Amino acid sequence: MMPVLPLNKQTLETIQIKIDSKTKPVGALGTLEPLALQLALITEQRFSKHCELNSASQISINKPTMMVFAGDHGINEENLSIAPSAVTKQMVLNFLHGGAAINCFCQSNNVALTVIDCGILKSISPEEIPHPVDINQHSPKFVERRLAAGTDNFAVTSAMSISQVKQGFANAEQLVNEHISQGVEILLLGEMGIANTSSAAALMSALTSYSVSQCVGRGTGITDEQLNKKVSLIEQALSRIAPDSQASINTAKDFTAEEIIEVLSQLGGFEIVHMVAAILAGAAASIPVVIDGFIVSVAALIAVRLDKNVANYLVFSHVSQEKAHQLLLTELLAAQNFSPLQGQPLLDLGLRLGEGTGAALALPLIKAAASFYNNMASFESAGVTV
Amino acid sequence: MMPVLPLNKQTLETIQIKIDSKTKPVGALGTLEPLALQLALITEQRFSKHCELNSASQISINKPTMMVFAGDHGINEENLSIAPSAVTKQMVLNFLHGGAAINCFCQSNNVALTVIDCGILKSISPEEIPHPVDINQHSPKFVERRLAAGTDNFAVTSAMSISQVKQGFANAEQLVNEHISQGVEILLLGEMGIANTSSAAALMSALTSYSVSQCVGRGTGITDEQLNKKVSLIEQALSRIAPDSQASINTAKDFTAEEIIEVLSQLGGFEIVHMVAAILAGAAASIPVVIDGFIVSVAALIAVRLDKNVANYLVFSHVSQEKAHQLLLTELLAAQNFSPLQGQPLLDLGLRLGEGTGAALALPLIKAAASFYNNMASFESAGVTV
Repeated sequence: MMPVLPLNKQTLETIQIKIDSKTKPVGALGTLEPLALQLALITEQRFSKHCELNSASQISINKPTMMVFAGDHGINEENLSIAPSAVTKQMVLNFLHGGAAINCFCQSNNVALTVIDCGILKSISPEEIPHPVDINQHSPKFVERRLAAGTDNFAVTSAMSISQVKQGFANAEQLVNEHISQGVEILLLGEMGIANTSSAAALMSALTSYSVSQCVGRGTGITDEQLNKKVSLIEQALSRIAPDSQASINTAKDFTAEEIIEVLSQLGGFEIVHMVAAILAGAAASIPVVIDGFIVSVAALIAVRLDKNVANYLVFSHVSQEKAHQLLLTELLAAQNFSPLQGQPLLDLGLRLGEGTGAALALPLIKAAASFYNNMASFESAGVTV
Repeated sequence: MMPVLPLNKQTLETIQIKIDSKTKPVGALGTLEPLALQLALITEQRFSKHCELNSASQISINKPTMMVFAGDHGINEENLSIAPSAVTKQMVLNFLHGGAAINCFCQSNNVALTVIDCGILKSISPEEIPHPVDINQHSPKFVERRLAAGTDNFAVTSAMSISQVKQGFANAEQLVNEHISQGVEILLLGEMGIANTSSAAALMSALTSYSVSQCVGRGTGITDEQLNKKVSLIEQALSRIAPDSQASINTAKDFTAEEIIEVLSQLGGFEIVHMVAAILAGAAASIPVVIDGFIVSVAALIAVRLDKNVANYLVFSHVSQEKAHQLLLTELLAAQNFSPLQGQPLLDLGLRLGEGTGAALALPLIKAAASFYNNMASFESAGVTV
């Protein structure tokens, strides 16, 4: 993995002065102001790497691209979700046919869409892939990077091997770099995988000081009985991987990269593994990475644990209905340090769908922040005398 | 004024079934679901008026148009704002030159922009109007409908005459209908007017049971001293117009149209008067009207007081930093009755700028709601077996 560079704080003041000179009272654009600051710092970092002088005079976030990673989860044999694992593939086909919510929102907001099979139960056969009727950017691209036919049930055994984790990392890094070489300057992430809130909750509990109960929610809408079972199976998994003392893993201590990769192999999902590396690769290339809901936020937490510089490249699109998401966002926002202003996720719409829907919905706000920063007049240029 | 028709509740169930058949768990798109329901009901109402069969099979919100109404306020001679009244005209010129936040957000979200001078202090002379460099929809249109050179100071006298209110109503109705005849199917409203939070707070207090202190906020950022003065001047105005008993006006009683027009003439602003009628005209034509911040919400309250059927045609884009805005939204959302779900403003970004910025920023969410309703596959059509 390439290292992630810290943002250059030396230009922060210049950027803030530019924001404050715009024809509006200082701070009147609320959350969009620290967002513009962040985007300008990231753009400046990217340009300076290529030895181009920019001093963040313009934010550049061209070719927004959504990558939706899909995978199946062995834990779903425990009946922890509202749906059978077969629905993961059905929804992937729905993405490819353009019929899902994420298709609508990508189309509506002009976002290119790539769908990646990271290891769903049954692969998509060539004849199942629709021939795009019209070749335009709204026809989703399909990529196969299967690590296996679903993970193993992490309640009883390791979800995957260490080499599968590493293969997933390599896959995602290569895919993201390919997109970036084609001009993508902002990456949006989404996921599909029946039962993946179970994997995400287990990972969150393993890597933070939050208890399993605090990390577990109702996903897309399970019963009380399923919820209790979800908690006890995850507790069982955590005891399995740290039999002597659950506290030894379930604390907010600093983990080594090896320990994190071990936890990921034990509790992860193929789509989560890919997203961790996609986030690292996006940040390493100095482009903003837009984080969707709970599952993607867990991948973001892991990426930040692997490299703390990642945090400042993340844009949090929304807070979902999944109750642990707010806890996770608080943790992730606290890891950002580019702005004296407290960060906030952009949207709070009560979403609980995943697929990257929250990230796609937030993109116009991100573009609006770039637009006011790039195009709005200053008091001086407009002759406004406040 | 044309009457506003109630939404046809008979198609509500059909629409809800369509929403619930989409390939997502029921309710998983949060606030966007009741929004789609509302937009479908409004579209159906519009089509049925023209005797076209639609049964809300598709939401139609083409040619979104932002109308920014500007006016100056006599009360600003009391120094209640961070800026002198001359800034209203400077900002109108900034709009016409494309340099303001509202220009950036309209351009970014593909919204046409019309700026209306309803009575700023000094009119815009023909040579001050920029010749559009490129004739495209992003060049703002400028319209002059001046009721006078600013209102009178409502702390000491009536802000305007009854005939000015009626002229403003006629102006706005004609303007909105002109836009609708050109194919505009969704209207967004914004305003500019130094000191217009004072007028809006006075109107809110006069027409609700909230005290002046509850209705007054810091606008774009005034001092404690200015805040106290703002409260006492508004209290003075309310005593002036109801000398015997302030309570007789400052309650949530039902007002007659004549009483409301009287209150509007006493405390209003020219831009607020125009917006009240623009909202009524939009609702009467059965198109959704997107409400911006505190000032536009006060205009919406007055429109709803004049015709309660208006409420269901309003989309609340955001809750601003102006503290009374939340109170006002609660009141307005309670007046909506198309959905069993509690309505919510779409955004909470800590904005306090006006100009219609919140409404322009929320438009992509409104389009996204239309997009999922119109284009998303059903479980049946996609072969998803949840």
